[in-house]
Amino acid sequence: MSPKITTELLKQLRQVMKSPKYVQEPVQAYIVPSGDAHQSEYIAPCDCRRAFISGFDGSAGTAIVTEQHAAMWTDGRYFLQAAHQMDNNWTLMKMGLKDTPTQEDWLVSVLPEGSKVGVDPFIIPADQWKRMSKALRSAGHDLVPVKENLIDTIWTDCPHRPCKPLIMLDLSYTGVSWRDKIVALRSKMAERKVLWFVVTALDEVAWLFNLRGSDVEYNPVFFAYAVIGMNTIRLFIDGDRMMDPAVREHLQLDSTLEPEFKIQVMPYGSILSELQAVGASLSPKEKVWLSDKASYALTEAIPKAYRYLTPYTPICIAKAVKNASETEGMRRAHIKDAVALCELFNWLEKEVVPKGTVTEIIAADKAEEFRSQQKDFVELSFATISSTGPNGAIIHYKPVPETNRTLSVNEIYLLDSGAQYKDGTTDVTRTMHFGTPSAYEKECFTYVLKGHIAVSAAIFPNGTKGHLLDSFARSALWDCGLDYLHGTGHGVGSFLNVHEGPCGISYKTFADEPLEAGMIVSDEPGYYEDGSFGIRIENVVLVIPAETKYNFKNRGSLTFEPLTLVPIQTKMIDVNLLTQKECNWVNNYHQKCREVIGAELERQGRHEALQWLIRETEPLARAQ
Amino acid sequence: MSPKITTELLKQLRQVMKSPKYVQEPVQAYIVPSGDAHQSEYIAPCDCRRAFISGFDGSAGTAIVTEQHAAMWTDGRYFLQAAHQMDNNWTLMKMGLKDTPTQEDWLVSVLPEGSKVGVDPFIIPADQWKRMSKALRSAGHDLVPVKENLIDTIWTDCPHRPCKPLIMLDLSYTGVSWRDKIVALRSKMAERKVLWFVVTALDEVAWLFNLRGSDVEYNPVFFAYAVIGMNTIRLFIDGDRMMDPAVREHLQLDSTLEPEFKIQVMPYGSILSELQAVGASLSPKEKVWLSDKASYALTEAIPKAYRYLTPYTPICIAKAVKNASETEGMRRAHIKDAVALCELFNWLEKEVVPKGTVTEIIAADKAEEFRSQQKDFVELSFATISSTGPNGAIIHYKPVPETNRTLSVNEIYLLDSGAQYKDGTTDVTRTMHFGTPSAYEKECFTYVLKGHIAVSAAIFPNGTKGHLLDSFARSALWDCGLDYLHGTGHGVGSFLNVHEGPCGISYKTFADEPLEAGMIVSDEPGYYEDGSFGIRIENVVLVIPAETKYNFKNRGSLTFEPLTLVPIQTKMIDVNLLTQKECNWVNNYHQKCREVIGAELERQGRHEALQWLIRETEPLARAQ
Repeated sequence: MSPKITTELLKQLRQVMKSPKYVQEPVQAYIVPSGDAHQSEYIAPCDCRRAFISGFDGSAGTAIVTEQHAAMWTDGRYFLQAAHQMDNNWTLMKMGLKDTPTQEDWLVSVLPEGSKVGVDPFIIPADQWKRMSKALRSAGHDLVPVKENLIDTIWTDCPHRPCKPLIMLDLSYTGVSWRDKIVALRSKMAERKVLWFVVTALDEVAWLFNLRGSDVEYNPVFFAYAVIGMNTIRLFIDGDRMMDPAVREHLQLDSTLEPEFKIQVMPYGSILSELQAVGASLSPKEKVWLSDKASYALTEAIPKAYRYLTPYTPICIAKAVKNASETEGMRRAHIKDAVALCELFNWLEKEVVPKGTVTEIIAADKAEEFRSQQKDFVELSFATISSTGPNGAIIHYKPVPETNRTLSVNEIYLLDSGAQYKDGTTDVTRTMHFGTPSAYEKECFTYVLKGHIAVSAAIFPNGTKGHLLDSFARSALWDCGLDYLHGTGHGVGSFLNVHEGPCGISYKTFADEPLEAGMIVSDEPGYYEDGSFGIRIENVVLVIPAETKYNFKNRGSLTFEPLTLVPIQTKMIDVNLLTQKECNWVNNYHQKCREVIGAELERQGRHEALQWLIRETEPLARAQ
Repeated sequence: MSPKITTELLKQLRQVMKSPKYVQEPVQAYIVPSGDAHQSEYIAPCDCRRAFISGFDGSAGTAIVTEQHAAMWTDGRYFLQAAHQMDNNWTLMKMGLKDTPTQEDWLVSVLPEGSKVGVDPFIIPADQWKRMSKALRSAGHDLVPVKENLIDTIWTDCPHRPCKPLIMLDLSYTGVSWRDKIVALRSKMAERKVLWFVVTALDEVAWLFNLRGSDVEYNPVFFAYAVIGMNTIRLFIDGDRMMDPAVREHLQLDSTLEPEFKIQVMPYGSILSELQAVGASLSPKEKVWLSDKASYALTEAIPKAYRYLTPYTPICIAKAVKNASETEGMRRAHIKDAVALCELFNWLEKEVVPKGTVTEIIAADKAEEFRSQQKDFVELSFATISSTGPNGAIIHYKPVPETNRTLSVNEIYLLDSGAQYKDGTTDVTRTMHFGTPSAYEKECFTYVLKGHIAVSAAIFPNGTKGHLLDSFARSALWDCGLDYLHGTGHGVGSFLNVHEGPCGISYKTFADEPLEAGMIVSDEPGYYEDGSFGIRIENVVLVIPAETKYNFKNRGSLTFEPLTLVPIQTKMIDVNLLTQKECNWVNNYHQKCREVIGAELERQGRHEALQWLIRETEPLARAQ
């Protein structure tokens, strides 16, 4: 990996930072965050501006360029990668280390008095703007919005913003029509006494209109905004996608509808001016609801007194609670996904053990191939983590030719992968050994399994937030002085983003919403030993009501049902470390895999994979 | 309980709210919070202003009086009590219910346009002021500081502010001299680049100077502030307490000292003007460190640009980590406390079972009597919760003649009590049955015990925050659909406040600091059934390093050592619900009680209590 040479680019950027063509007054610093205008986790190539200017293409990082300096803030996952990808015009700011200054402190230390710091107001979330603006102002500087993105002005071969055809989801997939979703949204708006709601997150637009797209890799979304009033619906979207008769029919664009359900289609780029018009039309006490993570540009379009900001929007919360159709779709998707993985693991056993010719990349491709054979397969839900031996200890590993290892009978293999099917999204991790695992590897695996089971089998009161379950996943590891440095679970969309809010299971105290029946999260504890191996056991699980002996204050209880039904390699389990209850959990889980996935393998005529499944789901026997 | 008649008082208050003698401009509303100027949890009688004006004397509540209305906000613990104690001049605002307005919303709904809302700036914490001021301002009103407390102007028989003699603690108790504490504090100040630190919490002043007082019941503190500069020490304290030669020597007031250790003693009331002088003397970049919970008055004395606010002060954090002398003192205190409780329980068994003449109040008094026989006993550390049968379900119960029940062989008895000894502070809860508990009572007790053990025996990495352990305490209850509606543990002072920050074990996500070896917290899960019984098992536990098989990232692990050594009634345990590990924990705990407390009972010649201890610590046998 050789670094990107950025001398010329930085020179150009510094010129436009002073050019009256682009900035009202020269800016002494320009911030290039990594997000897009929708604060997406995965972004389109045209939004990879930070990677363009610096060469560093990790998923997290913020670049700041001043007249003299260029600095990049990123976290521990990316220190090495960033150092390799950036030339020596750049200073790497290692976030999380004690001596690393914050962006604000660094700016204050390098800027001449009374400087202007520019940023694209569409790319920076309002809450970040506020924090940074305050810090700069208190040091005598100004954060200023620069309307034209300065990177775009020098990025001559910038790819076009994608504008791919839309997929319509009918009621059998969504369970609720977009009309009924609008009705429900308006009732939430009425409860909070707001007149308008601005939909800025791409997955929220997609969910609301029962549409999907493919503008961003892995996430079935499309570039659009929506503004919902009590009597109006405005959809901001580009391209000829709205010419497609099927889309027009889905959105009833040509039907005679009550005016409050008539969708006005407007250009994607007109959101700001339309929102400013809304802002200008408001009377006192009339409010506009926005996510507090919406861009500064859109937030600022609504005068402060009229803003109603919340960390999670009503769509985010409604979207998280899957209805019966979505749940059934997720079940179907996970059955198909399990079939693909049974095929894969069976194939791996046949190839790895005698031949030793399978690399991480080949295994990942094979997994995709088996998945793509399944009905309604659309694409992967994230870049497959296919890692063997020491690569398994790199939590966000993705095999590339430079790092590609060959699977062998001597190393642990970790596969974290998932797909988008039209009926649901999957995300599953299995850790296996194709030879004979050491006692220590089995011991670590078994602690991780105990943590996985502790979460999966947990019973907890209605209203419990996911972060209260995180320690259950770690307890067995903690007892032996071990741990893992990531959260235990994230929300999963229904044929939508594989990571979604507002719930999760993490030691980090974020403002998560309580778990509710119908929510879907991952359960994925792990253990990683730098330079030798990684272990992770991940199922996607559905929150369901639990039957309990008593019912304190009539609150009701919840538990999880695994949607992922892929065998957990029993060879890796030290049965003596399991309690009888844990042993029963494994056996019941494998029994269910055998029944449900077995039937589907049978139906699909995949007999060899079925034999593999039956072998892998033999009950554990525990010495009493 | 008949309500307090407040018609005349409210009339007087409304007069002073308009009197130019007390307010620059009339205020249309006056807020009476329940705190004192130090944001203490326990307050002196002279600070019970909210109780004076309303009659409601619960520990939490805020009164707001307008020209037309008088309203009281309090939480679920106090709905009944407040309704009984207040006359119908008052509207009860039940916090936590959906339809109850916030104080801000209510004010906005009742005030005429452009109103002024007054509050004593010494009583309201700066963070609360900020929130309320913002809400009022956005509705066109103003929150204004009223220098003279308006309640005090009408409270003709207001008790004097206590000013009791001080207790000096020598090095054998504190382990560190006040001089060394100042040195350590200054080094923390230097790290954060602050020039001044303002000590506003009473327990922080007491801890810093190795002094104790008795100005507030149960908390061995005294009214004082301190302002520490890099070269100056100012102690703001009233009365002739500083005339005591022993105090003068302890503080080296008359010695020739390096100037930076010379304590300037100033009147308690001069803190504001002195702090304003400090504020006025600052140059740019010079900062003053305050708790963000310090009063608005003191916070405002420092211009905003010079303030450095943190949720926990360096003293709060240093105070929480007990040194070897403090830990040894806490151990001694807990041994003495256990002796007193063994005596009490032995006495109760002899009295309750055959005679049935012991009431909750008699039992509480008897507990105090036994404690007071122990060396260095000072006072109780909180009002004893002595509750039998249904009273046990009232979590913050304190027996009064109207509610006083007689202990019997038919009901569960819950005793939550503790004391201040010169060497340490105790807080212990035991739940017992003097007859034969039902299977259901034993079942619930055993779940609570399992939760207690899960926390007490937990092993967790260095750097773990206490709130991550809270669910361990609930897991066994949750499995059966049960729970308890309070946190699991709080920090405990060393001959200081029985509740102290910055750590705790709670499902509420507050900004707790990580647990460290040397910190002391309570472990007190419970189960409460309204109208029938309450169960709680509470030990005070010390955070200690744990030995583990492995040591991930060299972080080291922690666990707890119980300081409380009082038998847990085995009669209440359903042994079949315990795992072997839990059973061993109980037996080891009881073995230690027998050894340590047994030796002390022997030494003190308390033979009957010793026999009781031996009976109560017989090992449990679990059917294999």
